[in-house]
Amino acid sequence: MFKVLNNGLDHPSKQQQAREEFEKVLAGKSVKGVTERALRYDLTIPFARYVAMNHGQLTFPFKRYQVQPVWRADRPQKGRYREFFQCDADVVGSTSLWNEVELASIYAAVFNQLKVPVTIRLNSRKILQGLAECYGGAGRMVDITTAIDKLDKIGIEKVKEELADAGLEASAIEGIGRYLLLEGSTPQKLEGARQLLSASAIAGQGVDDLTTIVQRLQRSGDCPVEVDLGLARGLNYYTGTIFEVKAVDVSIGSIGGGGRYDDLTGLFGVPNIPGVGISFGVDRIYDVMDELNLFPASVHSATDVLFFNLGEKECERSFELATLLRKNNVRCEVYAESARFDRQFKYAERKQIPYIVIIGNDEIANGTCKLKTLATGQQVDLTTTELLAFHFK
Amino acid sequence: MFKVLNNGLDHPSKQQQAREEFEKVLAGKSVKGVTERALRYDLTIPFARYVAMNHGQLTFPFKRYQVQPVWRADRPQKGRYREFFQCDADVVGSTSLWNEVELASIYAAVFNQLKVPVTIRLNSRKILQGLAECYGGAGRMVDITTAIDKLDKIGIEKVKEELADAGLEASAIEGIGRYLLLEGSTPQKLEGARQLLSASAIAGQGVDDLTTIVQRLQRSGDCPVEVDLGLARGLNYYTGTIFEVKAVDVSIGSIGGGGRYDDLTGLFGVPNIPGVGISFGVDRIYDVMDELNLFPASVHSATDVLFFNLGEKECERSFELATLLRKNNVRCEVYAESARFDRQFKYAERKQIPYIVIIGNDEIANGTCKLKTLATGQQVDLTTTELLAFHFK
Repeated sequence: MFKVLNNGLDHPSKQQQAREEFEKVLAGKSVKGVTERALRYDLTIPFARYVAMNHGQLTFPFKRYQVQPVWRADRPQKGRYREFFQCDADVVGSTSLWNEVELASIYAAVFNQLKVPVTIRLNSRKILQGLAECYGGAGRMVDITTAIDKLDKIGIEKVKEELADAGLEASAIEGIGRYLLLEGSTPQKLEGARQLLSASAIAGQGVDDLTTIVQRLQRSGDCPVEVDLGLARGLNYYTGTIFEVKAVDVSIGSIGGGGRYDDLTGLFGVPNIPGVGISFGVDRIYDVMDELNLFPASVHSATDVLFFNLGEKECERSFELATLLRKNNVRCEVYAESARFDRQFKYAERKQIPYIVIIGNDEIANGTCKLKTLATGQQVDLTTTELLAFHFK
Repeated sequence: MFKVLNNGLDHPSKQQQAREEFEKVLAGKSVKGVTERALRYDLTIPFARYVAMNHGQLTFPFKRYQVQPVWRADRPQKGRYREFFQCDADVVGSTSLWNEVELASIYAAVFNQLKVPVTIRLNSRKILQGLAECYGGAGRMVDITTAIDKLDKIGIEKVKEELADAGLEASAIEGIGRYLLLEGSTPQKLEGARQLLSASAIAGQGVDDLTTIVQRLQRSGDCPVEVDLGLARGLNYYTGTIFEVKAVDVSIGSIGGGGRYDDLTGLFGVPNIPGVGISFGVDRIYDVMDELNLFPASVHSATDVLFFNLGEKECERSFELATLLRKNNVRCEVYAESARFDRQFKYAERKQIPYIVIIGNDEIANGTCKLKTLATGQQVDLTTTELLAFHFK
């Protein structure tokens, strides 16, 4: 996390205390004396705080989306940014699995519209909790999920080594290994987990949850999700369904993730408000779309029409017409300098502006203008009325 | 400015140097050793940096808008926030006054659309520079503009006291006083300034600039601006026209400001790129609109239709129809819990959702639904096709 230095530390009354507090920073301790504030790390915790502070006024189930920058004090590299945008959607105050269904559908709809091929994977922390109960003990859940979370990166053998290093017994590791090797279709994997973890009631609940969600999503049609029993998600506040989205064939980590939490507002003194949410990693999605050339050519053209500048009186007329066209949502620019034609043409070309309007002395006298289509070179004379009615596409 | 504490200061190799650097912080000096980074203070300087870094690739005149949070380490109070959004629009690479005309028109169009009554005031730093040349000397410009900048808050007598404290001679102060008392229509004020500052060539240019801008804006119609010779703007990088927007009858300071700068990119090693820009203070505009009750009632209603939840099968059907309606841009919610009717009604009422769709056993059997309009209590039976074609407004 990035910490913000307090202001006013140079005030004589504060210096000695600041010096002492700074020694704690140098000792790697967390202090408030010199850094009371930090940069926002995610949108979930601030949202939980908002809900806790306003729970008396909110209508539950409460839904919100939020798009904001967050910061991580990591070394920047591909897919890892110090500042990046998250876009979150959460529903709090409802335990219904229809919320999971809706959030998974949002993922599917968004990536479908963006034309980004993705896998949307689901698991349940309840199953992972059951796994811990059966193999190693409920108290080892963090060790087990932390190791499993690395499965994609390090493979099953290294995961087993980590579990051994964490002190798990061989029989427990063997059981976890069998769990991670469960294969087949989603119903087959869920059935496998149900049998393997039959000693755990909560694992059974997790299997039931996922079965319900997957069936509902299948019936509603166009939302392809898959259950991945090896999905763990690092964040320990998740207690139920967890989600992860990855772009197919682009190696950049997950571009979306989320899950159900039972008691996030408990952090801020208001217990028992369950919720579920998802997050989009906006900058990674941008990178993926860039890599796959998914941005349409039109994003490079922000202007539909350029009015050439032929002098003061002509420009006044152009400015007037541009103002009227803008009211019809036609994106216009008036070239501000009275420059040579070739320079104005070059500007239009470089900015990929498809239409040029030329108004000279004659046009002012006639109440007309010349409209030139750059792609074809075609030029027509239009009256003002015709220009304002013209269909720029 | 908020400064961000460097990470890794607790590393043994860095501690001693960090300690020494921190002593400089305590001495009120600017240091990089413990705080290399700071939170964005405005959008203009980062934009200048961007232009300087990319000037070889950009097409000039280069225009951009940008909406982002900025931070000020002030004590928060009404109209003063630690974090707030600015929205900036700039044009660089052009000295044409048509840019000023366009930016003033943007102010007028935006506040017109938002229905916020404003005054858009203009002045020119050239006139202020001429004022300094005539009264006190060119080198006293910062003292003079700093004092004049407070005119609205402290009145003319206190401004004169400040000028005296700054060491200006009585005759200079008297001249500045006469300048600040210039009255009448915009042409009269400009003519007064021209005569009073006739010894300064640059003041004459400033008067010419404002005359051109005001005339062009008058001809283009709906952009009411006024020249305010007492407008100074605190920022010393402005060199030409300056703008300030205030809400009429709301005391919250300026809600917009900007101006022309000759050499902002010079800061970053690329000289001679002139520009002009304006900024909207988004949070203050929000506060003004809130105070004047300008937000439409519709902002409180984010959902057009609520599908009641009558059970699993019914909800599946509702979810399917909601998905189809959403594709027609109808904003839908499916109530996630299978709760009592009165609870679902209450949710719709509290969220000001105008329409309710009820699908029970009979409706599934018939392929219909009940559509209820909450305002009138009217209820109709519709086929699926009729529901999808219904005009929700």
